[in-house]
Amino acid sequence: MNDALTEQVFHLVKRLRDYGIEEVVISPGSRSTPLAIACEVHEQMTTYIHPDERSAAFFALGLIKATNKPVAILCTSGTAASNYVPAVTEAYISHLPLVVLTSDRPHELRNVGAPQAINQVGMFQNFVMYERDFPIADDTAGTVNFIEHVMQQASAHFKGPMRGPVHFNIPFREPLMPDVTKKHLLSYMPVPEVLYQKSFNVHLLRPVLSLGNGLIIAGDAQQEDLTQLLIFSTIHHIPIIADPLSQLRDTRHPNVITTGDSAFKALTNIQPGYVIRVGHAVVSKSINQWLSALDVPQVLVQSRTTPDTFPKVPDLFIEMTANDFFRQLAEEQPVDNREWLKYWQTLNDLITNKIHQHTQVATDEGRAIYHIFSQIEDGEVLFLGNSMPIRDCDTFFTHFNGKPYCNRGANGIDGVVSTAMGMAIHKKVTLIIGDISFYHDLNGLIMKKLEGIDINIVVFNNNGGGIFSYLPQKEDDTYFERLFGTPLDIDFKHAAALYEFNYYKYNAFDNITLPKHGANIIEVITDREENLNAHRQLQNALKEKLNAEL
Amino acid sequence: MNDALTEQVFHLVKRLRDYGIEEVVISPGSRSTPLAIACEVHEQMTTYIHPDERSAAFFALGLIKATNKPVAILCTSGTAASNYVPAVTEAYISHLPLVVLTSDRPHELRNVGAPQAINQVGMFQNFVMYERDFPIADDTAGTVNFIEHVMQQASAHFKGPMRGPVHFNIPFREPLMPDVTKKHLLSYMPVPEVLYQKSFNVHLLRPVLSLGNGLIIAGDAQQEDLTQLLIFSTIHHIPIIADPLSQLRDTRHPNVITTGDSAFKALTNIQPGYVIRVGHAVVSKSINQWLSALDVPQVLVQSRTTPDTFPKVPDLFIEMTANDFFRQLAEEQPVDNREWLKYWQTLNDLITNKIHQHTQVATDEGRAIYHIFSQIEDGEVLFLGNSMPIRDCDTFFTHFNGKPYCNRGANGIDGVVSTAMGMAIHKKVTLIIGDISFYHDLNGLIMKKLEGIDINIVVFNNNGGGIFSYLPQKEDDTYFERLFGTPLDIDFKHAAALYEFNYYKYNAFDNITLPKHGANIIEVITDREENLNAHRQLQNALKEKLNAEL
Repeated sequence: MNDALTEQVFHLVKRLRDYGIEEVVISPGSRSTPLAIACEVHEQMTTYIHPDERSAAFFALGLIKATNKPVAILCTSGTAASNYVPAVTEAYISHLPLVVLTSDRPHELRNVGAPQAINQVGMFQNFVMYERDFPIADDTAGTVNFIEHVMQQASAHFKGPMRGPVHFNIPFREPLMPDVTKKHLLSYMPVPEVLYQKSFNVHLLRPVLSLGNGLIIAGDAQQEDLTQLLIFSTIHHIPIIADPLSQLRDTRHPNVITTGDSAFKALTNIQPGYVIRVGHAVVSKSINQWLSALDVPQVLVQSRTTPDTFPKVPDLFIEMTANDFFRQLAEEQPVDNREWLKYWQTLNDLITNKIHQHTQVATDEGRAIYHIFSQIEDGEVLFLGNSMPIRDCDTFFTHFNGKPYCNRGANGIDGVVSTAMGMAIHKKVTLIIGDISFYHDLNGLIMKKLEGIDINIVVFNNNGGGIFSYLPQKEDDTYFERLFGTPLDIDFKHAAALYEFNYYKYNAFDNITLPKHGANIIEVITDREENLNAHRQLQNALKEKLNAEL
Repeated sequence: MNDALTEQVFHLVKRLRDYGIEEVVISPGSRSTPLAIACEVHEQMTTYIHPDERSAAFFALGLIKATNKPVAILCTSGTAASNYVPAVTEAYISHLPLVVLTSDRPHELRNVGAPQAINQVGMFQNFVMYERDFPIADDTAGTVNFIEHVMQQASAHFKGPMRGPVHFNIPFREPLMPDVTKKHLLSYMPVPEVLYQKSFNVHLLRPVLSLGNGLIIAGDAQQEDLTQLLIFSTIHHIPIIADPLSQLRDTRHPNVITTGDSAFKALTNIQPGYVIRVGHAVVSKSINQWLSALDVPQVLVQSRTTPDTFPKVPDLFIEMTANDFFRQLAEEQPVDNREWLKYWQTLNDLITNKIHQHTQVATDEGRAIYHIFSQIEDGEVLFLGNSMPIRDCDTFFTHFNGKPYCNRGANGIDGVVSTAMGMAIHKKVTLIIGDISFYHDLNGLIMKKLEGIDINIVVFNNNGGGIFSYLPQKEDDTYFERLFGTPLDIDFKHAAALYEFNYYKYNAFDNITLPKHGANIIEVITDREENLNAHRQLQNALKEKLNAEL
């Protein structure tokens, strides 16, 4: 047994737990033995074992999205760690507190040609908020003191405005087995408290508010509380263009506009008095293009030191939570915006009805997705793949239940299955995903076998990359199918059999029924050309109707 | 059309080809459109389309291993690029000339919250020999001049002693379609020539050679020519302990010892006069442990400025190709080492025979792998998974045909299927792989559907991580199966169906027949405990026999 090692890893795991990390996703390996055992021994730590590190890290993002708490991932040395990079990049942009624990070979085996040793020091430097290379455990107080400093500093990124991924690289010398009889080293110790200061001078905004006809654009606010935003909107009659990831759409608040993307595709002459943007940039390209050309005051509210200025640098940036900001703003004297609000509500009703009519006759993905949305119940998670599903959600998720989620930080098609599986540990999840993205993370399905997870996975199989059909590249037939369309011709019933999912197959025009229980893959066969045409038809119909009636 | 863009990407792709890059593996995306089209239009450039970037990059490593030429990989912006990291780390340690082309968003969309934009500048800095962030194309001569400089510098890493991965990060503004009528921009232009200087003073080594009883340890020499090494060994009667990846085992040279790992497991008192090490460190742990404690002069010959000093810092390091070194050394006056050579040849025969006997009665993976080796024909590639297959190859590949290959730089279990599939584009390949490593890169099988590749994939399924049974962690039953054994209970016949491979199933004690043609998955069911026991039995039998007879 190795006393110094035991003290180091038990202290680290105890402090991870003390600072609020309740779950760790472990990928099997030898070098990571000390930490793996320590996590397993800790009675208040839940462990998951995932054999593919790329999927494991995305699975951890799902746990974070479901619980809003920091989650650790642990792997052995070598390329194992490099498989974490895709999810770490996503966590960095999405501000998710992923605690990356990479085991390393000791210093004497680094850069000398020893096996399974890559340069892990600072290997995530482009994508983490904080990183430290740990010392080898010895019998001084140094290691434990080091952990105390590191955990206090790193914990600034576990919650609050600076949250995001951190990286601990931890070298171990053999022997690797810690002394599991020393469980007392894992007992809880209180952690120091930290307070964030907030301030904001409301006078700055009075000239803007007095312009009237304000518009709130709410993007993914990283699960911030938006109660005060709704109260401000109510008192001041301000419409809220709600991105699906703002998770305001299912609030049924009359000021929430659920059809912003369609509205801005159809109408180009909308002119508010001012705009207040909350959270990340919205998914809708039409809204972002409109915003980037818009010449009225734009205010951006984000609780981050470095704001997301896309699509246009705001005239005023306020570093605050939305709740703190709107609480103060609500107390200002309201301007009468009733006509303006009424215009938006009428617009929203017109579009919602027209979309409903469309889905009753169409035979495309839009119809199918609309039908699926109608079966999602209150409080359930609707996880959307990038490319088409999140965009279809933006268009068709007009008046339904459920909270939409997505890996929208870096917009990758990778790791989507795993993130949804991670969320499904804690919530009832329906994932809607395209065939290429599903193929990309097929390995993520393994967690159903290992953890017995229930989930509905709806795969829209249009045999290729459907979103590319909407790009100018489509116009040149010579290269399109080979370089962009990329049909894979996969029959996913075999993937269902491989990982023991129930399997159902539909066409887009069928009445798709989501199973109530179990792990289910629901493959929906659609056609790229038909989707593109139906999409354009709907857009043209909306354009005609809105320009005629408004 | 975008004239500046066309000139930039056509010039870049032309120079990639001029500098010897004949193949590019493209993962579909939008931002990468200009380069994808340019590669497709170039008549002397072969393109492969691979939808999973992690597998795509490992597939490119296979192309490099098969052709010994630089290969490019191309992807879109965002997490796509981060999926390249595992293969780039492997390429860096294995000195493989992987040319990483990541498309990026233009500068105004970086770090502002725009979609699919991650910090790609220098993102592989820990793992590449060279990297450049490209300028946006404009209508000055600047871009083309830049490409001329960059390609000349980067090409130092395409072959020769400094070869390894390079990274070009290339931002593109819309519109993304190049003008394909300008094919003349792709015509060949000669490239400047570069000469490497080599020198070595043979006097330095005379005192070492005069000690007699020399031993050559040949590891993976990255496909260097070892002809002069064999000539020196013949003239000076020096035995060569040949790692399977040295690719000397199938030369049938009488001085080549194919059973070094078993010898050093059985005998601890072997005392040569000196050791000359060539290439990367050997796979065998018993040899490396012996070398690290050995107190005789050790010489390391590698054509690298930074040598691989593992497992022990050599007394003399010579930066040269093996051929240049041994050509000079062969001309020295030979010392009579005949007795010493005879000892090694007897030892090798004893072990080879004993192993043969063992495989006639055993029912474990060793027996099965031995049976498979006997069916590999001259010049064929035997690709080995990391963990057990490469170690079993070290033990059992004693007198067979075929060239063993492995991703032995970073020793990852990831990407093994893809690298073998890449080699199978150019060679006849049999891959031997464990179930966890196979699961990890199942996605790599897609290339069979897309490129119609023939390959034999032998999966040793012992339902978990077999190599962990050999570690001290095995002694603690409480955590072993969950943390290390990790049984996945996968029935791989569904994976075969998913990707349209032929499927065969055997037990380890069956007579396994490798199909002569087609894409085949041959699953061999084995038992971890039985393998461990058979392995120990063989080791003990060898120890007894050698200590009795030598």
